Amino acid sequence: MDIATIIGLIGGTFLISIAIFLGGNVSTFVNLPGLLIVVGGTVATCFIKFSMSDVINSVRVAMKVFTVKIDPPDQIMEKMVSIAKVAKERGLMALENEKPDDEFASKAFQFLADGFDEEQIKALLKKDVNLTIQRHTVGQMMFKGMGASAPAFGMIGTLIGLVQMLANMANPQDIGPAMAVALLTTLYGAVLANLIFIPLADKLALRSQQEQITKNLIMDATLGIARGLSGMVFQETLKIHLSPKERLKVVPKTKSGGSA
Amino acid sequence: MDIATIIGLIGGTFLISIAIFLGGNVSTFVNLPGLLIVVGGTVATCFIKFSMSDVINSVRVAMKVFTVKIDPPDQIMEKMVSIAKVAKERGLMALENEKPDDEFASKAFQFLADGFDEEQIKALLKKDVNLTIQRHTVGQMMFKGMGASAPAFGMIGTLIGLVQMLANMANPQDIGPAMAVALLTTLYGAVLANLIFIPLADKLALRSQQEQITKNLIMDATLGIARGLSGMVFQETLKIHLSPKERLKVVPKTKSGGSA
Amino acid sequence: MDIATIIGLIGGTFLISIAIFLGGNVSTFVNLPGLLIVVGGTVATCFIKFSMSDVINSVRVAMKVFTVKIDPPDQIMEKMVSIAKVAKERGLMALENEKPDDEFASKAFQFLADGFDEEQIKALLKKDVNLTIQRHTVGQMMFKGMGASAPAFGMIGTLIGLVQMLANMANPQDIGPAMAVALLTTLYGAVLANLIFIPLADKLALRSQQEQITKNLIMDATLGIARGLSGMVFQETLKIHLSPKERLKVVPKTKSGGSA
Amino acid sequence: MDIATIIGLIGGTFLISIAIFLGGNVSTFVNLPGLLIVVGGTVATCFIKFSMSDVINSVRVAMKVFTVKIDPPDQIMEKMVSIAKVAKERGLMALENEKPDDEFASKAFQFLADGFDEEQIKALLKKDVNLTIQRHTVGQMMFKGMGASAPAFGMIGTLIGLVQMLANMANPQDIGPAMAVALLTTLYGAVLANLIFIPLADKLALRSQQEQITKNLIMDATLGIARGLSGMVFQETLKIHLSPKERLKVVPKTKSGGSA
Amino acid sequence: MDIATIIGLIGGTFLISIAIFLGGNVSTFVNLPGLLIVVGGTVATCFIKFSMSDVINSVRVAMKVFTVKIDPPDQIMEKMVSIAKVAKERGLMALENEKPDDEFASKAFQFLADGFDEEQIKALLKKDVNLTIQRHTVGQMMFKGMGASAPAFGMIGTLIGLVQMLANMANPQDIGPAMAVALLTTLYGAVLANLIFIPLADKLALRSQQEQITKNLIMDATLGIARGLSGMVFQETLKIHLSPKERLKVVPKTKSGGSA
Repeated sequence: MDIATIIGLIGGTFLISIAIFLGGNVSTFVNLPGLLIVVGGTVATCFIKFSMSDVINSVRVAMKVFTVKIDPPDQIMEKMVSIAKVAKERGLMALENEKPDDEFASKAFQFLADGFDEEQIKALLKKDVNLTIQRHTVGQMMFKGMGASAPAFGMIGTLIGLVQMLANMANPQDIGPAMAVALLTTLYGAVLANLIFIPLADKLALRSQQEQITKNLIMDATLGIARGLSGMVFQETLKIHLSPKERLKVVPKTKSGGSA
Repeated sequence: MDIATIIGLIGGTFLISIAIFLGGNVSTFVNLPGLLIVVGGTVATCFIKFSMSDVINSVRVAMKVFTVKIDPPDQIMEKMVSIAKVAKERGLMALENEKPDDEFASKAFQFLADGFDEEQIKALLKKDVNLTIQRHTVGQMMFKGMGASAPAFGMIGTLIGLVQMLANMANPQDIGPAMAVALLTTLYGAVLANLIFIPLADKLALRSQQEQITKNLIMDATLGIARGLSGMVFQETLKIHLSPKERLKVVPKTKSGGSA
Repeated sequence: MDIATIIGLIGGTFLISIAIFLGGNVSTFVNLPGLLIVVGGTVATCFIKFSMSDVINSVRVAMKVFTVKIDPPDQIMEKMVSIAKVAKERGLMALENEKPDDEFASKAFQFLADGFDEEQIKALLKKDVNLTIQRHTVGQMMFKGMGASAPAFGMIGTLIGLVQMLANMANPQDIGPAMAVALLTTLYGAVLANLIFIPLADKLALRSQQEQITKNLIMDATLGIARGLSGMVFQETLKIHLSPKERLKVVPKTKSGGSA
Repeated sequence: MDIATIIGLIGGTFLISIAIFLGGNVSTFVNLPGLLIVVGGTVATCFIKFSMSDVINSVRVAMKVFTVKIDPPDQIMEKMVSIAKVAKERGLMALENEKPDDEFASKAFQFLADGFDEEQIKALLKKDVNLTIQRHTVGQMMFKGMGASAPAFGMIGTLIGLVQMLANMANPQDIGPAMAVALLTTLYGAVLANLIFIPLADKLALRSQQEQITKNLIMDATLGIARGLSGMVFQETLKIHLSPKERLKVVPKTKSGGSA
Repeated sequence: MDIATIIGLIGGTFLISIAIFLGGNVSTFVNLPGLLIVVGGTVATCFIKFSMSDVINSVRVAMKVFTVKIDPPDQIMEKMVSIAKVAKERGLMALENEKPDDEFASKAFQFLADGFDEEQIKALLKKDVNLTIQRHTVGQMMFKGMGASAPAFGMIGTLIGLVQMLANMANPQDIGPAMAVALLTTLYGAVLANLIFIPLADKLALRSQQEQITKNLIMDATLGIARGLSGMVFQETLKIHLSPKERLKVVPKTKSGGSA
């Protein structure tokens, strides 16, 4: 589970709540019709833009961000190195029995075991990575779109409130409270967009980038096994994908692996 | 028909209408000259930017979004697999009799039946996909442009109203209602842009992306047939284009196809 | 001549004039110094950004948009098919006598007649297309830049007016009219940008895109002639550049051409 | 010297000054602390973003825009044609004595005279062009950044002024003048950004683009000489880089050169 | 240490402080709950978008910008030239003893000493450069994201303040001070974004670009050594990476190196 995201969401909500509580009357900030316009309008544009299945799918994908953990690249590299050893010692056919959790890796090993040639494997895996990224962008686009719609519908709500207030300006004392209510939708839109939708869209983009690094690591490992790369070149090829910090973690094992 | 889009459009309109009705006097929100400026100005810029035939064409394309359905990739894949079997058993010439609904697929099979070589087919189909995408962007650009023009003309209408009001500020009591009227064009522009034009532009973009996936699937299938790929490689090549969920749907048939 | 653009410009201007007339006092909307700041400031930034010859050239290019018509791709394709016949029957030298109106086509045929080889022709024509597009972007950048400068100088004019008004707020009754005058420059900037500069910039971009399609069609035809492509492949290669609607127009001739 | 830029800068400044003078009291628009915040804040962000040497270098580059003139492409083409003749008649070694003013051209000829092969020359010159463009973008980024910082610090100044005014609203009559002063920084920021920083950034970008065209022309000429292209092909290769207008200027000489 | 950045940060802060002090009452500008909303909200979005380790890592990277100095390209070039001499005279194995400070260079020399072939080295180093750049963008994205979040939370704070003020408008005299407090969060957000977050994001981007130039220089040097380039070509290949000013610095040594 992604603790930082949870902390950020709770912390940000808490801060804004505190600011509202400190001002005294909390009920001033509750306006159900206003909330309905902002949330409803944002959801409505989602439905216009995307198909029903896209909407459901994106929610599912967003949930996965909080629950599924990506293996750190250094661990994946170690697995790949040990699998490369298996392939060297017992042949590519032996990979049939390696069942990694990762669907992408298991498909890649299946290709190796099925005797696909290197060019075919490269073409298939590369296309898979590209199309997966393209599919991920649908989810990012949805949250980014909601981040743009929420403030817009906030403004629409405020404009409706202002027009109603200005058209019936009988009592000057009512102007203040009426305007406060009108401004609420703008506030709702700003909070929803800046605390929830935009950060989640960025989170999905970052996640997708991490998955891409992982998949490229697996792809390079698979191609290295297909090519029969020597231990040292194979490890250097994989280590390139690690950050300097992650490289430090695998150094000792790499050394011993290199001497094997 | 695309139900989600219809639901979104009706739902969003309903929400905004509710907010207006709850405020009491609905007639406050009706201002024909204001509506004329926003809609008329937006349409005028469309005519300046695009040729008459582009405008008509884009409306036609937008309509198609609601009425024409794209076959899901898994169904297309299955068709392609069965056509590949026909080609293997009875030769490429037999494809002359396959008449798929899809214009792109029927052209691709015609190329195969006419004996075009693989490189020619690849070049022709790739160019076709690229130019189709380019043509689609005209429609997206039109709606995106309207989504930018509508708020701009809304602001222009409000400025005209404000200048008129401020220049004749004889009676302070008239300021409120006059300003309410002035703000209406901004409201019209914001609603048109955020509920209709921008979501439709995004919808067209997503549609175009889906069509591209479908066309790439057909192109890869055609090239696979031309190359005479073996059953398993052929299916893996096509399966890459499916989402994980769609892949599950074709798994059983793929298995039996692989054993054939 | 491009009727849609003229209709859009006149229609949009008419709509805004109507809105002003309906409000009564038209003279309220005339403010020469304000117009001078917006138009003058916008022109001044143009001069800073571009050289004198760029400015003159871009105006000339913009004028051409309204007067010069691009031949529809289907007509160009038919011309190319007939020229390809000439080349097949009487040799490439015979193209010396073909004098198409289009400068690009006449240069391409000259290359063929001069005996340049296919690779050279491809390299030269491709570079020509790319550099022509790059030159066109200067005109687009100018109008896009004016579309950004006009509202900025409108705001500058309004700020100057507001500062003058606020500094001398002796008589509260003067505030309204003074503010009306101050807002006029913002109005001028918004109308100029959204009704004229931005749409014209987009128009130039679309024009450039159409010209690019035409030039790519001519380039593919020239290369097809150089390669001596057979009638059917030659026609399919060109038809790719047409939209589905344009393809329908050339279908009958294509069929008979294919049988020739 | 670039006259258009000077005219634009003086003209724009003149227009804004006129608008201020027409309003009467000029001293209203002078506020040194406000100017300090806007100019100082903009310069401060420059220092944060760039190194000391970048800042100094960019000012030097910007100055060069006004003083150094780029040779028009047609003149460069003519020089290249005459140099190609020298190379044909007296061998590549003879280029050692050609000393063009342009540093890039002289380096290119040096490569030819030193006997570098075509591939090496192409790789070296291409990398040089790319890295020069990258270096130029630093200057553009600086001015573009200042164009974004100036209005931001203008707004910061206005906010500071507003807070001070609102916190001490003892005398209602002071509100107007205090607000006028507060608005001044916004005005300063808008004028600096829209009349100076943004246009200069665009100017530098256009300059860089022109230099790129010139360098590509020289590179193609150098490679043509290395390849020993025939006169006609050589001239067509260079003419591609000229605009239609520039091409007309070199036509007569080209014709005679072609017959030579 | 990067003095310009420090000067910019201190200078900008000083300027804004002066503007506040000149207005008299400094305590007007201090509002802890407001500061908490802006800073807290900005930090919260960071946590939502990035993982805990990304946040810590980015702070560490940002610190490095102020403390670690990149060697100027001309110095690196000179080192490379001397190392190339070592390689020529004593063979690639001798590079094992060269221990440059730069991690990238030491890895590149290790590859040479280990006898990797040119293509492998190029592929490995290129991938390393690309992935390093990708890793650097995380830091830039974080600061750019904070530069967008800070003004947004500033606006949210102001909206909360305005709603509270408008809902309780019992005493007209309280409006001014209450609005002053409400505006403070907007001010905080604008200052944080424009003086700190956005400039630091740009700084990191520029740094990354400089590192890229350095790494490309080292890569070209390594490949040149692997290829056994002659002294003159080797030096010209490296000199391409220097700016005109840096080239002047290495000229004399280059000349003598060329004659060696």
